[in-house]
Amino acid sequence: MRAVKLTSPGTLELVETPIPEPGPGQVRVKVAGAGLCHSDLHVLHLKSPWPGPALTLGHEGSGWIDALGAGVTGVTEGDPVLVNLIWSCGHCRPCVMGRDNACVSGGRHNHPPTPGLGPDGAMAEYMLVPVRHALPLGDIDPVTAGPLADAALTPMRAINSVRDRLTPGSTAVVIGVGGLGHLAVQILHASTSARIIAVDMSDDKLDLARRHGADLAVDSRGDAAEQILAESDGYGVDAVFDFAGVQPTVDLATSIVAPEGVVRLVGLGGGGLRFGADADTRALPWGVDIRKSYGGTLADLTEVIALAAQQKLTVESTVYPLDDFQRAFDDLDAGRVTGRAILQP
Amino acid sequence: MRAVKLTSPGTLELVETPIPEPGPGQVRVKVAGAGLCHSDLHVLHLKSPWPGPALTLGHEGSGWIDALGAGVTGVTEGDPVLVNLIWSCGHCRPCVMGRDNACVSGGRHNHPPTPGLGPDGAMAEYMLVPVRHALPLGDIDPVTAGPLADAALTPMRAINSVRDRLTPGSTAVVIGVGGLGHLAVQILHASTSARIIAVDMSDDKLDLARRHGADLAVDSRGDAAEQILAESDGYGVDAVFDFAGVQPTVDLATSIVAPEGVVRLVGLGGGGLRFGADADTRALPWGVDIRKSYGGTLADLTEVIALAAQQKLTVESTVYPLDDFQRAFDDLDAGRVTGRAILQP
Amino acid sequence: MRAVKLTSPGTLELVETPIPEPGPGQVRVKVAGAGLCHSDLHVLHLKSPWPGPALTLGHEGSGWIDALGAGVTGVTEGDPVLVNLIWSCGHCRPCVMGRDNACVSGGRHNHPPTPGLGPDGAMAEYMLVPVRHALPLGDIDPVTAGPLADAALTPMRAINSVRDRLTPGSTAVVIGVGGLGHLAVQILHASTSARIIAVDMSDDKLDLARRHGADLAVDSRGDAAEQILAESDGYGVDAVFDFAGVQPTVDLATSIVAPEGVVRLVGLGGGGLRFGADADTRALPWGVDIRKSYGGTLADLTEVIALAAQQKLTVESTVYPLDDFQRAFDDLDAGRVTGRAILQP
Amino acid sequence: MRAVKLTSPGTLELVETPIPEPGPGQVRVKVAGAGLCHSDLHVLHLKSPWPGPALTLGHEGSGWIDALGAGVTGVTEGDPVLVNLIWSCGHCRPCVMGRDNACVSGGRHNHPPTPGLGPDGAMAEYMLVPVRHALPLGDIDPVTAGPLADAALTPMRAINSVRDRLTPGSTAVVIGVGGLGHLAVQILHASTSARIIAVDMSDDKLDLARRHGADLAVDSRGDAAEQILAESDGYGVDAVFDFAGVQPTVDLATSIVAPEGVVRLVGLGGGGLRFGADADTRALPWGVDIRKSYGGTLADLTEVIALAAQQKLTVESTVYPLDDFQRAFDDLDAGRVTGRAILQP
Repeated sequence: MRAVKLTSPGTLELVETPIPEPGPGQVRVKVAGAGLCHSDLHVLHLKSPWPGPALTLGHEGSGWIDALGAGVTGVTEGDPVLVNLIWSCGHCRPCVMGRDNACVSGGRHNHPPTPGLGPDGAMAEYMLVPVRHALPLGDIDPVTAGPLADAALTPMRAINSVRDRLTPGSTAVVIGVGGLGHLAVQILHASTSARIIAVDMSDDKLDLARRHGADLAVDSRGDAAEQILAESDGYGVDAVFDFAGVQPTVDLATSIVAPEGVVRLVGLGGGGLRFGADADTRALPWGVDIRKSYGGTLADLTEVIALAAQQKLTVESTVYPLDDFQRAFDDLDAGRVTGRAILQP
Repeated sequence: MRAVKLTSPGTLELVETPIPEPGPGQVRVKVAGAGLCHSDLHVLHLKSPWPGPALTLGHEGSGWIDALGAGVTGVTEGDPVLVNLIWSCGHCRPCVMGRDNACVSGGRHNHPPTPGLGPDGAMAEYMLVPVRHALPLGDIDPVTAGPLADAALTPMRAINSVRDRLTPGSTAVVIGVGGLGHLAVQILHASTSARIIAVDMSDDKLDLARRHGADLAVDSRGDAAEQILAESDGYGVDAVFDFAGVQPTVDLATSIVAPEGVVRLVGLGGGGLRFGADADTRALPWGVDIRKSYGGTLADLTEVIALAAQQKLTVESTVYPLDDFQRAFDDLDAGRVTGRAILQP
Repeated sequence: MRAVKLTSPGTLELVETPIPEPGPGQVRVKVAGAGLCHSDLHVLHLKSPWPGPALTLGHEGSGWIDALGAGVTGVTEGDPVLVNLIWSCGHCRPCVMGRDNACVSGGRHNHPPTPGLGPDGAMAEYMLVPVRHALPLGDIDPVTAGPLADAALTPMRAINSVRDRLTPGSTAVVIGVGGLGHLAVQILHASTSARIIAVDMSDDKLDLARRHGADLAVDSRGDAAEQILAESDGYGVDAVFDFAGVQPTVDLATSIVAPEGVVRLVGLGGGGLRFGADADTRALPWGVDIRKSYGGTLADLTEVIALAAQQKLTVESTVYPLDDFQRAFDDLDAGRVTGRAILQP
Repeated sequence: MRAVKLTSPGTLELVETPIPEPGPGQVRVKVAGAGLCHSDLHVLHLKSPWPGPALTLGHEGSGWIDALGAGVTGVTEGDPVLVNLIWSCGHCRPCVMGRDNACVSGGRHNHPPTPGLGPDGAMAEYMLVPVRHALPLGDIDPVTAGPLADAALTPMRAINSVRDRLTPGSTAVVIGVGGLGHLAVQILHASTSARIIAVDMSDDKLDLARRHGADLAVDSRGDAAEQILAESDGYGVDAVFDFAGVQPTVDLATSIVAPEGVVRLVGLGGGGLRFGADADTRALPWGVDIRKSYGGTLADLTEVIALAAQQKLTVESTVYPLDDFQRAFDDLDAGRVTGRAILQP
C-alpha cells in the first residue's frame, strides 16, 4: 500500500509498504481521508530525525473497518469509523473515571500515544487502530470526517469542562475564530443558550463567527475589554475561551472574566499570569478557574460525532488525492488552503 | 457601650458609643467574642486615614441575638449566632445560585461589605448584622467561635471547590500548616478519605499536621517535590492547597500536581505562572485547574459550623478582655499569641 | 384599589380595598398582568371556606415596582419585575445552598408561601412582594410575563435537574405537550442539543411540538413505547419528562427509559411504581433516577427570564381587563382560552 | 485443575478440568480466594438446568496474575488482583462516560457478563479475566479480598451517587446493617462527615453499626420514623439507603427523607411507591430522588480498593479449603457463617 512517510527531517515520501495486519484488540482501518494539521508541519520541520523507523503521518483519520484482530468483537468489517486522537489505556484510574485525556500512560507531561505522532498515522491506504479508539461514524461521510478528531475535539473538551456554568443567561466569549475557535462557536450555539461573543482582528473571521451563531462579534483592533465589560454591567462574563494563546489575549481574558468565572487557554499557545491581592495582580478577580486545555476524552468525541451527525458542526475542507500530498503540505504552509486540507487515498 | 475604633492611622481607641438600634432586616448581636486577624494589623497600619467615621474593627464575631429590627422573623432573642464574613445581597444572579461569594454588590474586584472593614465590626459590646448573615451556632461556645467565620471558612471554600475530586484513593497536599492550613487538614480529615500530605518548614507545624490527621508530613527544607512525586508514581497528586502563596510554593504546587489535577492558591498571597506547550512552560501539566480563593459562601459557613458542632474542627485561642485590646494587638504583632487571639467584651 | 377576591366557596368578587403599604423588606408592585391557572379554579371550587380573610387570587404576577418598604435597597421605582412563585426564607440550609425550592419554611410536604394561595396575589391593582422575590424583567413585556413564573418555571427545574445528562447525542422525551410540556420542548430546544421526542394523543399538540423544536413527534394512540425504543436500539432514552402524570404515561416512561436514565414526573399528577428484581418489577431498568417535580428555584426563574428575553420562550396568551375576571374564569373553565388567560388591571 | 461446578440443578461437584489458556486481551488469574454469596445459593437452587456447559461458580474472586493473553500489556505475572463483578465492554457510550455499570452490552434489563454467572467464575484454581477487569490489589491480602467486588462495590455505588449531598451537616440513614449495610456504614464513616443513623431490628446489628461508626442506632422494632424525624426537626434527612428492600423499609424511607432528599433502594429487594399530590401520595415529599441500585463501576471498585488498602473497610470472613465447598454452602444455607465465607484453592 502507499503511505506518506517522514523519511528524514524536512522530507516526506510516498512509499510502498506492506498492508499491516491487526494484532490482538486492533482493527485495520481502510482510510477514507486524513486531515492535515499545522502540527504536521511542525513535525516535518523538526531539526533532528524522528526516532525509530520512518513515521507515517496523520492524526486526523477516518475510514472503514477492514479487518479484525484477535479477540475483537462488537464491530463489523465495513463499519465507518473515526480514529480517536489520544490512545488511552482504558484501565488506569483516570481512564475508568472517564478522564482518559489524563491517562497515566502519558505521564505528567505528555498525552498517551497519538497516531501519526508515534504509531503510524492515517496518511496511508490502511492503518491499525485499537478497537477502543475506532468510533462509529454513522451516516457521516468518512472522507471529510477526520478533522473532527482534533479540531472539534479540543474545543468540545474546553466547553464541556465549563458546561455547568453555561446556563441560560450566561455569556461566553470566544477569542480567536480560527480552525478551533469557529468550531467552538458552533458547539456553544448548538448545545447551550449562552450569549456568544466572538473576538477576532479580522473582518472575515468576525463574519464567520456571526454566520455560525455568535450573538456579538467584537473587533480586537478596538478596545475589546471595554466593550465586553459594558455588555456585562462591568461585572464580567461567565466563561472565556482563548484560542489565540498570546499574552495580549490572555490579558484580555483576565480583564473580562467575572469573579468565579472560567478561563480556558485552549491549544498549544500560552502566556503568563500573576495571582495575588496586590495592586498589580488585582486584574484577575477572585475565584476565577483557569486551565490550559488540549485534546479531549472518548466521551467528548462521541459528542462531537453526535453534533456532526445532526449537521450542527461544519468543517470546511479541501480534498487532495493522497499522491498530491506534497501540494497539500505546500498549500498549508503557504496559507492557501480553504478550511482543512484532507488527503484521500 | 465600649467599642475598639480605628481613630487615625496606627491608633486604636476604646471609645464609648451609643448601643446601635437594628434597622429593618437587621438583628443586634450582643458580642461574645471577636477574633483578631492579621488583616486587622494591616488595616491598623494603613498610611492614609480610613474613609468615613471611625471604624469599629472585628470581622470574626459571634454572640447572641439581642434585638430584632423591623420585619425580622425566624430568630429569637438569645439565639447564639456566628456573624458571616461576606454580607452578600441575596438577590443577584450569583447569590441565588448559591455562589454568594461572588455577589455582584462587590463588583469585579472586591468582596461585598465585610463587618469591621466597612460596617462596624465585632470589637464592641454590640454590633448590627443583617439577619441573613447571623448563622445559628447551636451548642458551640460563642466566645471562641468567631475565627470559624474567616480562618475556617476560607479553607472550606477551597476544599469544597474540589470535593468531587477528593474521592477514596485521592491524594491532597496542604502547603503551609498555619492558621488556615491546619484547619484545612482537619476539614480534609473529617470529611474525605483523601490521603493527606502536609508540607511545612517548621517541625512544630509538621507535628501539628500529624496530630490533626495528616498521613504524611513533608519538610520543605528538603526536596519536597521529589518526595511527593515519589509517593504518586511520578504522576502527581489530585489536589494542592497552597496557603503560603509565595513563588516557591506556587512552583512546588505546579511541580507536584497531576494532569487535570487541581491547585488552589488560598488567601492573599500569590505568585506567577506561565501557561503553554514550550519547554519553559511544560512544568504545568495539561488540564490543571487553578484558582486564587478567599472567603466562602453561606453554605460553606453552615458546613464549618456543622463540623465544629461535631467537634471535628478545633481552633486554639487565647482570650483577652476587650479592655486589653492593645495588649492583644501587640502580642499578635510580636507573634506571641498561641492560636487565635479573641477579645471578650 | 380593585382586587379579585375569593369571598366564599365558589364566589369571586371584585372588591374595593386600600392600596397596601410595603413593610420592611417588601416592595409594592403595580400589577401589569396576572395569569390564570387551573389551580385557581381548584381553589375557587374548594368545598370549605378559605381560612382567614378573603383572599386575592393570582400566583402568576408581573408589573412595576411602585414603592419600597423600609430597608429595601438595590431596586428603583418603575423597575419591571416578575413575581416569584415560591417565597422561600433565604436563610435556611436548603436556601443558602441554592435549593430554595425545598426551603424548610414549607415543612416536609408543602412549598413555602405562594402569593394568591396565602399572601394576597396578583389579581389586583397592587400587591406586596418580598424584594428577594421580585425579579428584574428587563425588556420583557410585564403584561404577559406572569405565566413564566409557574408554567415555565416548573419545566425549567425538571430539566435543570437532568442537565448534566442532556449532552450532545442524548435523547429526551416529553410526554404531554400542554401548557407546561410545550414550554419544556422550547427549553430543551433552546438550551441543549438533545434529540427531542414529543409524545401526545392530539394532532394539534404534536404539530405544536414540531413547531417548537421537537425532532420527532410520536402519537401515543399508537405503540409509542415500541416506536421510541426502536429509535434507541432497544436500549432506551436518557431522560423522560412526564407532564401528563397518569398511570399509562408513568408506565410509558418506565418502559422507554435507559438503565441509569432519568424520569421526571412533573406537576401535580402521579401514578404508582414497583421497584425490585422480580419478573413483575423488571420493567424499570437498574439505576433509573425518578422524582416528582413541581415549582423551581430563584436561579431557575432567572434562567426562564433569560430565555424569554432572548425570545426563545413563547407563551401564547389572551388578555382580559381585570373587571372581566368572571368571563376569564368561565372561559378557562370551559376550555375556551387560547394559551394562558391574563387579567390586566 | 479443580473447579466447583454446577452440574445439574441443586448439585455442585468438584471436577478436574484443564487449566484454561488466556485469549487475546485476557489474563489468567491464579485464584487466592472466592467469596460465597447468597446469589450462589439462588443459582444452585434454580429449578431448570443452567444453559450451556457446567458452570464454575464464584463472582467474588481475587488472586494473582498467572499468564497473559495476546496483546496484554501493563500488567505482570504475580500481580495481585481483584476480579471486577461487571465485565463491561469499555467502548459504548455509557462505558466511555465512566458509567460502565450501564454498559449497553447488558441491554435494558441485565448487567453485562458476570463471572460465575455466565463466564466461568472463581471457585477454581484458575480463571480467565479480561485484563480491564483485573484490578491491582496492592498490599491487600488476595485470599480474603473477593467480597470487596460485590458486597462493598454495591454500597459504594449507591453512596457515590449521592456524594454531593453528603456535605458536612448532612444526615444519612442506613436501613439494614447486614453484609452490604455494615459496609455502607464504614464507607460513609470513612469518606464523609455525614451524621450516620443506622436502623435495624437486631441488637447485634445495631451494636455492629455503632462499632463501625454510626452516630445513632435506631431499633426498628420501635417507631423508627418518629425518632428519626425528631432528630431532623421534623423536616427529614438528606439520604436514605435501604438495604432491606421490603415494603415496610421502603415506607420508612419515604416517611423520613427530606424534600429534595435522596432514597436508594440497594440490592435485589424492592417495594411499591405512589407519586402524586393527593392525600394518599403526600407521604413522599417533592423532589425526592429515588433509584434502585445494584453493582457499580470500575471507578467505584478502585475506590473500594483504596479504602480497604487504608484499612477503613473491614469484611469479616471465614476461610474454607476449596475441597470443603459443600460444607461452606451448607453453612451459608443454614446461617452458620460468621461474615463472608471464602473458598481457598
